[in-house]
Amino acid sequence: MTTPTPADRFSFGLWTIGYSGSDPFGGPTRAPLDVVHAVEKLAELGAWGLTFHDDDLFAFGSTDAERQKQIDRLKGALDATGLVVPMVTTNLFSAPVFKDGGFTSNDRGVRRFALRKALRQLDLGAELGAKTFVMWGGREGAEYDSAKDVRQALERYREAVNLLGDHVVERGYDIRFAIEPKPNEPRGDILLPTVGHALAFIETLERPELVGLNPEVGHEQMAGLNFAAGIAQALYHGKLFHIDLNGQRGIKYDQDLVFGHGDLHNAFALVDLLEHGGPGGGPAYDGPRHFDYKPSRTEDERGVWESAAANMRTYLLLKERTDAFRADPEVQEALAEARVAELAEPTLAPGETAAGLLADRSAFEDFDADSYFNARGFGFVRLQQLATEHLMAAR
Amino acid sequence: MTTPTPADRFSFGLWTIGYSGSDPFGGPTRAPLDVVHAVEKLAELGAWGLTFHDDDLFAFGSTDAERQKQIDRLKGALDATGLVVPMVTTNLFSAPVFKDGGFTSNDRGVRRFALRKALRQLDLGAELGAKTFVMWGGREGAEYDSAKDVRQALERYREAVNLLGDHVVERGYDIRFAIEPKPNEPRGDILLPTVGHALAFIETLERPELVGLNPEVGHEQMAGLNFAAGIAQALYHGKLFHIDLNGQRGIKYDQDLVFGHGDLHNAFALVDLLEHGGPGGGPAYDGPRHFDYKPSRTEDERGVWESAAANMRTYLLLKERTDAFRADPEVQEALAEARVAELAEPTLAPGETAAGLLADRSAFEDFDADSYFNARGFGFVRLQQLATEHLMAAR
Amino acid sequence: MTTPTPADRFSFGLWTIGYSGSDPFGGPTRAPLDVVHAVEKLAELGAWGLTFHDDDLFAFGSTDAERQKQIDRLKGALDATGLVVPMVTTNLFSAPVFKDGGFTSNDRGVRRFALRKALRQLDLGAELGAKTFVMWGGREGAEYDSAKDVRQALERYREAVNLLGDHVVERGYDIRFAIEPKPNEPRGDILLPTVGHALAFIETLERPELVGLNPEVGHEQMAGLNFAAGIAQALYHGKLFHIDLNGQRGIKYDQDLVFGHGDLHNAFALVDLLEHGGPGGGPAYDGPRHFDYKPSRTEDERGVWESAAANMRTYLLLKERTDAFRADPEVQEALAEARVAELAEPTLAPGETAAGLLADRSAFEDFDADSYFNARGFGFVRLQQLATEHLMAAR
Amino acid sequence: MTTPTPADRFSFGLWTIGYSGSDPFGGPTRAPLDVVHAVEKLAELGAWGLTFHDDDLFAFGSTDAERQKQIDRLKGALDATGLVVPMVTTNLFSAPVFKDGGFTSNDRGVRRFALRKALRQLDLGAELGAKTFVMWGGREGAEYDSAKDVRQALERYREAVNLLGDHVVERGYDIRFAIEPKPNEPRGDILLPTVGHALAFIETLERPELVGLNPEVGHEQMAGLNFAAGIAQALYHGKLFHIDLNGQRGIKYDQDLVFGHGDLHNAFALVDLLEHGGPGGGPAYDGPRHFDYKPSRTEDERGVWESAAANMRTYLLLKERTDAFRADPEVQEALAEARVAELAEPTLAPGETAAGLLADRSAFEDFDADSYFNARGFGFVRLQQLATEHLMAAR
Repeated sequence: MTTPTPADRFSFGLWTIGYSGSDPFGGPTRAPLDVVHAVEKLAELGAWGLTFHDDDLFAFGSTDAERQKQIDRLKGALDATGLVVPMVTTNLFSAPVFKDGGFTSNDRGVRRFALRKALRQLDLGAELGAKTFVMWGGREGAEYDSAKDVRQALERYREAVNLLGDHVVERGYDIRFAIEPKPNEPRGDILLPTVGHALAFIETLERPELVGLNPEVGHEQMAGLNFAAGIAQALYHGKLFHIDLNGQRGIKYDQDLVFGHGDLHNAFALVDLLEHGGPGGGPAYDGPRHFDYKPSRTEDERGVWESAAANMRTYLLLKERTDAFRADPEVQEALAEARVAELAEPTLAPGETAAGLLADRSAFEDFDADSYFNARGFGFVRLQQLATEHLMAAR
Repeated sequence: MTTPTPADRFSFGLWTIGYSGSDPFGGPTRAPLDVVHAVEKLAELGAWGLTFHDDDLFAFGSTDAERQKQIDRLKGALDATGLVVPMVTTNLFSAPVFKDGGFTSNDRGVRRFALRKALRQLDLGAELGAKTFVMWGGREGAEYDSAKDVRQALERYREAVNLLGDHVVERGYDIRFAIEPKPNEPRGDILLPTVGHALAFIETLERPELVGLNPEVGHEQMAGLNFAAGIAQALYHGKLFHIDLNGQRGIKYDQDLVFGHGDLHNAFALVDLLEHGGPGGGPAYDGPRHFDYKPSRTEDERGVWESAAANMRTYLLLKERTDAFRADPEVQEALAEARVAELAEPTLAPGETAAGLLADRSAFEDFDADSYFNARGFGFVRLQQLATEHLMAAR
Repeated sequence: MTTPTPADRFSFGLWTIGYSGSDPFGGPTRAPLDVVHAVEKLAELGAWGLTFHDDDLFAFGSTDAERQKQIDRLKGALDATGLVVPMVTTNLFSAPVFKDGGFTSNDRGVRRFALRKALRQLDLGAELGAKTFVMWGGREGAEYDSAKDVRQALERYREAVNLLGDHVVERGYDIRFAIEPKPNEPRGDILLPTVGHALAFIETLERPELVGLNPEVGHEQMAGLNFAAGIAQALYHGKLFHIDLNGQRGIKYDQDLVFGHGDLHNAFALVDLLEHGGPGGGPAYDGPRHFDYKPSRTEDERGVWESAAANMRTYLLLKERTDAFRADPEVQEALAEARVAELAEPTLAPGETAAGLLADRSAFEDFDADSYFNARGFGFVRLQQLATEHLMAAR
Repeated sequence: MTTPTPADRFSFGLWTIGYSGSDPFGGPTRAPLDVVHAVEKLAELGAWGLTFHDDDLFAFGSTDAERQKQIDRLKGALDATGLVVPMVTTNLFSAPVFKDGGFTSNDRGVRRFALRKALRQLDLGAELGAKTFVMWGGREGAEYDSAKDVRQALERYREAVNLLGDHVVERGYDIRFAIEPKPNEPRGDILLPTVGHALAFIETLERPELVGLNPEVGHEQMAGLNFAAGIAQALYHGKLFHIDLNGQRGIKYDQDLVFGHGDLHNAFALVDLLEHGGPGGGPAYDGPRHFDYKPSRTEDERGVWESAAANMRTYLLLKERTDAFRADPEVQEALAEARVAELAEPTLAPGETAAGLLADRSAFEDFDADSYFNARGFGFVRLQQLATEHLMAAR
C-alpha cells in the first residue's frame, strides 16, 4: 500500500530532482542531472509522470537543433519507461530579460517575447500529450509600490492568458491552464499572491472554464494561510486543476521541503480532503499528485532519489492514516457530536424566504441563545486529538 | 488642508473610540463610552460619519425598549451634529451562542438566529440611511481541520448573503454589502481569509453586483500581504465598496493602531492609489474613509480623542505628500524611465492574434534578449527613494 | 505507557483549565472553575501538579480574608489528592494599574506596587512548597518606540529580579526564578522577546545562578523560531528551569493549543531532546512537564478535561515514538552517515593552538575542498524521513 | 547636512554594490564589479569605508598570486581615494564544502578548513587596518531537527571563536569580533538566530570582552522583532560593535533593501537611538554606519550607485528629523506626560531593601490601584503621532 506505482499518479518536476543546490548564498553543490537518467530513475521509483519548464530541458537561448535534440532524448526515455508528461510550464523568471517579469514587465517588448516563449512551450506540451499548462508568474510583481501599476498588470496578465486560451482553442489542444499563486520571493510582492486572488482573477477571463489553479503547499503557508482550507475553496469553485505538494516550516523563504516534512497536521488534512472529499464523500481530486520540492543542498545524488521516494511514501502513509481515521467509529461519533455534517444542511427550510424566516419565532424570539453559555460544547479538541492519534497510528 | 472637515468623509466605528481596553490578558482600562458623547466629540473633531454593530449601541439580549431608547438617543445626536451613519454591521462573534460562528456555525439553529440578527440590523441600517452593510465573519472558521467542512461553510455563507440580498431587494433598500476578510484571530483560520478569497466568493453569489469588499489594512498585513496591491485588485474587480483604515506592525495579533502608525510606506501608496488612482488618473475611490482602529489600552479618554484626530491628520498629511509626489517633474521623469505607464499599453497590437504574434520575428527570433544583461535597468530604486523623500517632505 | 501518572510530573496552570473563553472579540463561554474541583479533576486524570497566579486563586483586590479562604481551600484539596504546587507566578498584567507594565511601567508607583505584589506571591509560593517562581512580563513592553526607554526598562527589570533574589536568600526559600520570554501580545513588542534575549539578561543579574528560563512552545514559534533549538541553547547555558508546553500554528496570535496540536515535528524533536538529551545521552531535563494551554472557546467543561488529558497523552505518545526512533538500527546508521556525533569531537586536536593548526597542511593547503561538490552528501533528508516515519509509527 | 562625507563614517560591503542579481530563481543581471572601480565610486559618493569577505575580492580557490594581485589592487585604490577598510569577514557559506556549515559542520575536516580560512582573512584584515571582524554563520544550522546537535554546535562555535581570539591576542591585532545573528535562510534554522541568542552565547566565551554583535536590520525583522529595541539591549550589554543597515518589509525572505525602504518608523527610532541615545543622552554608538543591502536585480549599474547614495541620504534625513523631534518643546512635554524619563529612576529608594519596601504601606496597602481605571493615561499615542509628524516633516 505504501509502495508507489504509476496508478498513484505521482509526478515530479525536472527542476526538482534536477535542483543543483544554488541558493542566494551559494552556488551548486551537485552536477546537472541529465533528463534521460532522471526519467529512468523516476520510473524505477514508481513515479508516473515528469513535468518541466522549457529551460529545464534545453538552456535559455539554445539553438533549434540543441532544443530538438533534448526533446528527442526525452521522448526516447518516455517511450522506454512508460513515464508520461502530464504538465509543462514556461520559465519566464530566470533570464535577465525577465527581470521585471514576463507577461507584466513594464517593458512591452519583453511582454511580447514572453508570450512567444509561452506559446512555443505550449506547442511542445501539446506535442508531448500534456493536459495542463502551469503558469507561475514569479517575477510578475514589484518591490516598490510606485514601480508597478497593479491594475494594469492584471490587465496585461489577463491579455496574456486570453491569448494563450485562443491559441489552445484554435489549435484544438486538449490542454487547460493552471495558475500557481505565490505571495513573494523572488519579488517583494507577487501578482495574484494567494489561491483567492487567482480564483478571483480567473473570473475576469474570456474563457474562465479553461483556467484553474495549481496551488502549492508552501506558497500558501508562506502567507500563513491554511493550505487544506485554500484547497477546499479551490474545489468549491471547481478550479483545482493541478497541485504542487511539498513542505514548508512556517512564514519564511520558500523551502520546498519533502511533502510531510513541513506542517504534518495540515498534510494529513490535505490528503484526507483529496482522497476522501473532506467530511463525507469520495475522492475530491483525481489529477496528478505533483511534487514541487527541492532535495536539500546538503545531499548528493543518493539523497536526491531518497528524497524523491520520501515524498511518495509520506503521501501513501498519510492516505493510510486518513483511511483509518474515517473508518474509526469513535471518529464518526466525535464528528456527529461536533455537528460537522450538520453544516451541509441548508440553513433555510426548502422554499423558505426572508419573510418566512422572519415569521419563525423559534429562530429568534424564542431561541435560547443563553443556553450556549457553559454548555453545548462542540468537542472540537477531542476530534483534533483523534486526528493526531490517527496521524501517529496510536489507535 | 490637514484639518479634517465632513467633506473628507472620515468615519469611525463606535467600537473603535468606544474600545475600553479589554484584551486576552486584561480587562477594561476605560469606562464605557456613551454614544451621544461619542457623536458630539467626533463632530467636534471634524468627522463625518459614525458606524456601529448592533451590540455596540445596545447590549446583546437588550429588550426592545432598551434597544429603541438607544436608537433614539443616537438619532438625536446625529440630528444635533449633522453626523451621518454611512455603514452598519452586525456582531455575530461576541456572544457565546456564536462560539463556532454565525452564518457558518455547525449548529443550524445558531445559523438561523444569526440570519435573524443580521436582518434586524439591516433594517435598522436602512432606517438610519446607511448605504453599506459590512460583514466581518470573524468567528466563521476553525482551529482544527476536521472540525469544519470548508466547502459547506462557503455554501452556507453563500446562502446567507443571498438571503440578505433578497431582503434588500424586496424592501427596496439602497444598501450594498461589503465583506471584510481576515486571515485569523479570533479563530485559528477564518473563512475568506484575504481580499482575494472574498473576491472569488462574491462571483458565486446570486447578486454579485450587490456585494463588494471592506478590506482592512491590518487584516491583509497579518498575512504579510501588500495592502495597496490588494486594494488595486479590488478596484480592478470594481469591488472596493468600503475601506477600513488602521495600522499594523507586521505579522502578529491584530493591532488596530492609528492609520499611519504601522507600515508608513504602504500607507503612502494606499493614499496615493485612493486619491490619485495610482500611476495616472483621478481618484480611484469616493467612499467613506473609515477608521477601524483601537485607542491603545494605555490611554485615558483624552488619548481616545487624540488618537481619533491622529488618524484623520495622518491621512490628510499623506494626501498632501502624495500630491507633491505626483506633481514633481523628477518623479514624472523617473516614472517614465521606469516605464510604469508603458504597462497600460496592450501587449498585442490592435487586432493582433496569436497567429499574428507568431509571425512577428521582431518579437522573438530577432528580439535581443541578451541586451537586458547589465543594461536596460528600470530605475525602480530611484523611484522608491523619491517616494521616500516625498513621504519625509525632503523635496 | 501512555496513561499519565504523577511520576510523569505533569502540571497544569489553574488559568489553563480555568480559562473561561474570553478573547479580544468575545466574552466568556464557560463559567468560572472552582479551584477545589480543578484539583480533584487533575488528580483523577493522573496529573502531578497545579500552578497558579495570585489572581487565579483570589481576585485582584481581594480582602485578606477572601484571599486566605481560597488558600485554605486549595491546601485542603492538595492534601486530599496528593497534588503538589511546583510553581507559582504573579499576575502583573491584567489589572488597569499595570497597563504600562509592572516592574518596568514608566510610573514608579506602579513599579513599587508590582514588586510588593510579587513578593507577596513569592511568600505564598514558599509556603506551598513551590520550587519555581515564574516571571512572565507580558505587559513589560511598548507599542511605540519613543514611549519606552528599553535600556532603562532592562535596568528596572534587573533591579526587580535582584530584589526578589535578595528576598529569597534572606528568607531562605528553596525557590529559583524562571523568566518566560514572549515576543509580542498583549504589547506590540515585549521586553526580553525570546529565549536568547532572556538568557543574555540573566547574565547581568547579581545572582544569575538563581535565575533561569521558563520557555513556552508557542511564544518562540510566534517569532518563527525553532523551539527545540531554543531549548537546546537554554540547556547549553544550564538555564532550563521550567517549561511551558502547548501548541501553536505558525506566526499569529498566541493560540495556546494542546501540546502536539501545533508543529508536530518540532514537538517530536522537543520530547526527544528532553527525554533522550538529543543525539546521545540521557534525559536532559528532569523538571515539571507543565502545560500552559487554553481549552478552545468552543468547548464546554467536558472539553476542558478532554483537552487536559490530550496534552498528557500526546506527550507520552511522543515519548514512545522517540524511544523507538533512538532504538532503530537504521536510524543509528543514518545518524552515523550524517556524522551527527562527529560534531561532538573538538575541532582542534588536544592541546592544539592556532599556531599548530596553521602548521597543519592537511587542514588547508592539502585539503580537497572540491571533493564536496556532487559527493559527500550528509543524508539529512533520509534522517528526517526516518523521524517522520517514527512519528507516524510507520516503522 | 544630507550630503554624506567621510566624517559620517558610512561604509559598504563589496558584496553589496557588487551584487550581480543572482537569486533562487534567476542568474545574474549585472556584470561583476571590479574592486578598484567600486572604491573609486564609493569615494566619489562620500562614503568612508569598504568592507569585504575574502571571496568577494578573490574567488574561492584562487592561487596565492591571484589573491595577492587583488589585494594589491585594493590597496592601491584605497591609497588613491582615502577610503578605509574598517571591517572584514570570511565567506564560510558559498562553496560546496560548507554545505553543512563552517565552524559547526558535522564534518570535522570542514571545520578545520573553515578555521584556517577565517584565520587567513583575519590576518588580511589586520594588514589592512580593519578594527572589526564580522562573523555571519549563515550556513551554521539545519533544516531537520535530528540532523544537528545544537548543544554541540554551540560548543564548536565557541571553540572557533575562542581560537580566533587567541590568534588576535597572540599576534597583537587591534581587532574585535562581531557576531551577526540571523534566524533562517539559507538554512531552515540558523544557530544564534537573534541578537539575544548571540548576546547570551558571548558570555560563555573565554574572552567575552573581545566579542560583540553586528546586528542587521532585516535579520531581526525576519523574526518579527523590533530592531531598535534589539539594538537597545545590545547597547545595554555594551556589545554593539558594528551594525548592518538595510530595509526589510516584514517576515519573508531576506530582502536587503536600501535603508529606510523597509520599516520607516523603526528606522527613525533606530537613528534616534544611535544618534541621541534614546530618550536622553548623547550618541549611543560611534562605530561605522555600515550598509549591507542589495541593489535590486532590476537595476543596471546606474541604479547600483543611486541605491548606494540613497542609503546614505536616508540616514542623514532621518538624523535631521530626529534632531528636530528631540528639539521640539511639545515632544519634550509629551515625553514628560508619558513619564518616559521616570523609568530611569530606581524603583527602590537609595539603600532600600526588600524589608524596607515591605514596610512601606504607601507602596501597597495604601496604594490606590483602582485610580488607574479610566484615568492616568500615558499619552503614548500622542507621542507616536508627534514622531510620525516629525518623520514626515509636518511640524
